[in-house]
Amino acid sequence: MSKVLIIGAGGVGQVVVHKCAQRRDIFSEITLASRTKAKCDAIAAQLGGSIATAQVDADNVPELVALIKKEQPKLVINVALPYQDLTIMDACLETGVDYLDTANYEPKDTAKFEYSWQWAYQERFKDAGLMALLGSGFDPGVTNVYTALAAKKYLDEVQEIDIIDANAGSHGQPFATNFNPEINIREVTAPCRHWENGQWVETGALATKRSFDFPDGIGPMNIYRMYHEEMESIVKHIPTIRKAQFWMTFSDNYLKHLEVLQNVGMTRIDEVEFQGQKIVPIQFLKALLPDPGSLGPLTKGKTCIGVIARGLKDGKRKQVYIYNICDHEACYREVGSQAISYTTGVPAVVGAIMMLTGTWHAPGVWNMEQFDPELFLEVLGPMGLPEVVVEGEWPEL
Amino acid sequence: MSKVLIIGAGGVGQVVVHKCAQRRDIFSEITLASRTKAKCDAIAAQLGGSIATAQVDADNVPELVALIKKEQPKLVINVALPYQDLTIMDACLETGVDYLDTANYEPKDTAKFEYSWQWAYQERFKDAGLMALLGSGFDPGVTNVYTALAAKKYLDEVQEIDIIDANAGSHGQPFATNFNPEINIREVTAPCRHWENGQWVETGALATKRSFDFPDGIGPMNIYRMYHEEMESIVKHIPTIRKAQFWMTFSDNYLKHLEVLQNVGMTRIDEVEFQGQKIVPIQFLKALLPDPGSLGPLTKGKTCIGVIARGLKDGKRKQVYIYNICDHEACYREVGSQAISYTTGVPAVVGAIMMLTGTWHAPGVWNMEQFDPELFLEVLGPMGLPEVVVEGEWPEL
Repeated sequence: MSKVLIIGAGGVGQVVVHKCAQRRDIFSEITLASRTKAKCDAIAAQLGGSIATAQVDADNVPELVALIKKEQPKLVINVALPYQDLTIMDACLETGVDYLDTANYEPKDTAKFEYSWQWAYQERFKDAGLMALLGSGFDPGVTNVYTALAAKKYLDEVQEIDIIDANAGSHGQPFATNFNPEINIREVTAPCRHWENGQWVETGALATKRSFDFPDGIGPMNIYRMYHEEMESIVKHIPTIRKAQFWMTFSDNYLKHLEVLQNVGMTRIDEVEFQGQKIVPIQFLKALLPDPGSLGPLTKGKTCIGVIARGLKDGKRKQVYIYNICDHEACYREVGSQAISYTTGVPAVVGAIMMLTGTWHAPGVWNMEQFDPELFLEVLGPMGLPEVVVEGEWPEL
Repeated sequence: MSKVLIIGAGGVGQVVVHKCAQRRDIFSEITLASRTKAKCDAIAAQLGGSIATAQVDADNVPELVALIKKEQPKLVINVALPYQDLTIMDACLETGVDYLDTANYEPKDTAKFEYSWQWAYQERFKDAGLMALLGSGFDPGVTNVYTALAAKKYLDEVQEIDIIDANAGSHGQPFATNFNPEINIREVTAPCRHWENGQWVETGALATKRSFDFPDGIGPMNIYRMYHEEMESIVKHIPTIRKAQFWMTFSDNYLKHLEVLQNVGMTRIDEVEFQGQKIVPIQFLKALLPDPGSLGPLTKGKTCIGVIARGLKDGKRKQVYIYNICDHEACYREVGSQAISYTTGVPAVVGAIMMLTGTWHAPGVWNMEQFDPELFLEVLGPMGLPEVVVEGEWPEL
């Protein structure tokens, strides 16, 4: 029976609050905080006011410290912006509270995705006897756990992985991103990197395209190779992996919009002088696009996110595909958010359960593949994201 | 020998200054004024400092009046923004100076193109013994003159006109507009109107597409029907015309960019709240796009703008196509601007010559088709924009 402080009241925050509230056996008290308290209050109202809310600027360590000292939670679940990971980790260290997030830190002015900043907290968390669990969303998060499961149960040696993230749903809008457009566009416009033979290989953003035949009636969709942060920790902690690639589906329409917005400079993350003010184009674009939260009731179809792991079992080549299917409309009915937010928020809650029950607990900074995957998946399935495991053959991507 | 005041130091202003300076027999003194005096000074430097420059806010009547009183020009050539036509006309009335522009007034906050605002000045100019010549660019301007020429010389009765504007050139940029992007995008995203049987017929913006086989080796290009202001005055002053349509070429790439920018709201002309400031998206977009002035040295190819007039001659159906071909690179070599600015700026100078020499002069507010077209074209050809007249048959558009 623990008190939890959730920071961030976007689509994912809403899911986290709803799912924590379903498990009052673990989360006896819940406080939701955000820069805009009204967003927290709106979510609290969905739950009949059974959670507390607070205002906090997550860029500001003293404000965070004051809030944590006042609330005295056992764990802080950070579902704010990735820019804010370090300030929240600093505040947890200062107040002696465990930490969990769903996306790695990135600086605001360069689209540079790497764990170095957060891994640098290793000694400080260890010395303080505190735990930080990094990337407990779906990808990163569950994809790390699926890879660890392949390594533990299905293969003696995982040699290659393809992480494949399909959103086969549609929101019916001409253009909208399914989560924070600023984060989404930064990610997909960054150069691609994949892991091959002990090093990162850089190629053009979305320059490598394949078709993949998805299960569960989804069928073939175009997938594009891109960098995604879980590869960095997975290849570090499962060093038998000599090739790791991440793939995501994008519709032709999405790519057309992205190309044009890049051409005209609207995806720029640097400041532009305009009418005597400094404006970051991508932030202005975000202000014009539909609020991802507004897409929930409009989105139909499924997501399919999973890992194809290939390697050796008893000396022979073997492949296993571990994935989850999630339905946008079912998610919306349950928690008022579509599957993109749901698949990120539910694993955060399961990660929190792992930590608060002591199932996964050790001082230091940890990635998801470093703990027993089966213990996590035993909780994740009943919480709404069951895995499917298929052994078979898939074409090389 | 007259003094002229040119207001507006964009691409067209630069052409106007260069061409006036070629005709010192008419334009003995030239002053160029703009909100940003540095832009005027840069153009003056191209001409070895042989013109004067000044700073003026063309939205501000008292400032305009003070400048005109100080300069005492015989004529004001307005090549500023269309929003500023009325303030400059007011200042001309107050100071007793003739007026010429190249584009009709439109209010800043609605894309509404009509002559009503400027025609309302008719009595005041007449009573003051002053002349205002409206729309002395290429289209409006030369296209009005071509139509008047067809009515005077080639047909007894002009019944239908198709004004066709092709830019068969390329600047090699992913996306850029050839003149002020704010004005350009407002124009092409407005609903289409064409004249048919005594009334305006409204259809979707760029919804009607045809292919037209252009002369002079340009060949077939896609053209799109849109509203263009010269139709309003032409059908008023040449009332035998029962159908008038305006067509412009757009590349698939341009249309793709336009579609996306509309989808995301970047072409909006209303104010959006952003970071505590009010921002008009299309103005922010303009700040991001390449300055049309920078495209001059990059643009290759030709423009072809003209009018197909169809009607009766000696009781029989007859068609005549009157057009001009202009080469981007040749324009740039001559005046440092590409053909889009050149074809607008040269007719403004010819209109000024018509007025200052008394060839076309009468008190009141006038459109181009109301004067003798041959007198205008006799000057326009030697100034750089000769017309080609072809009698033949063209498919109905």
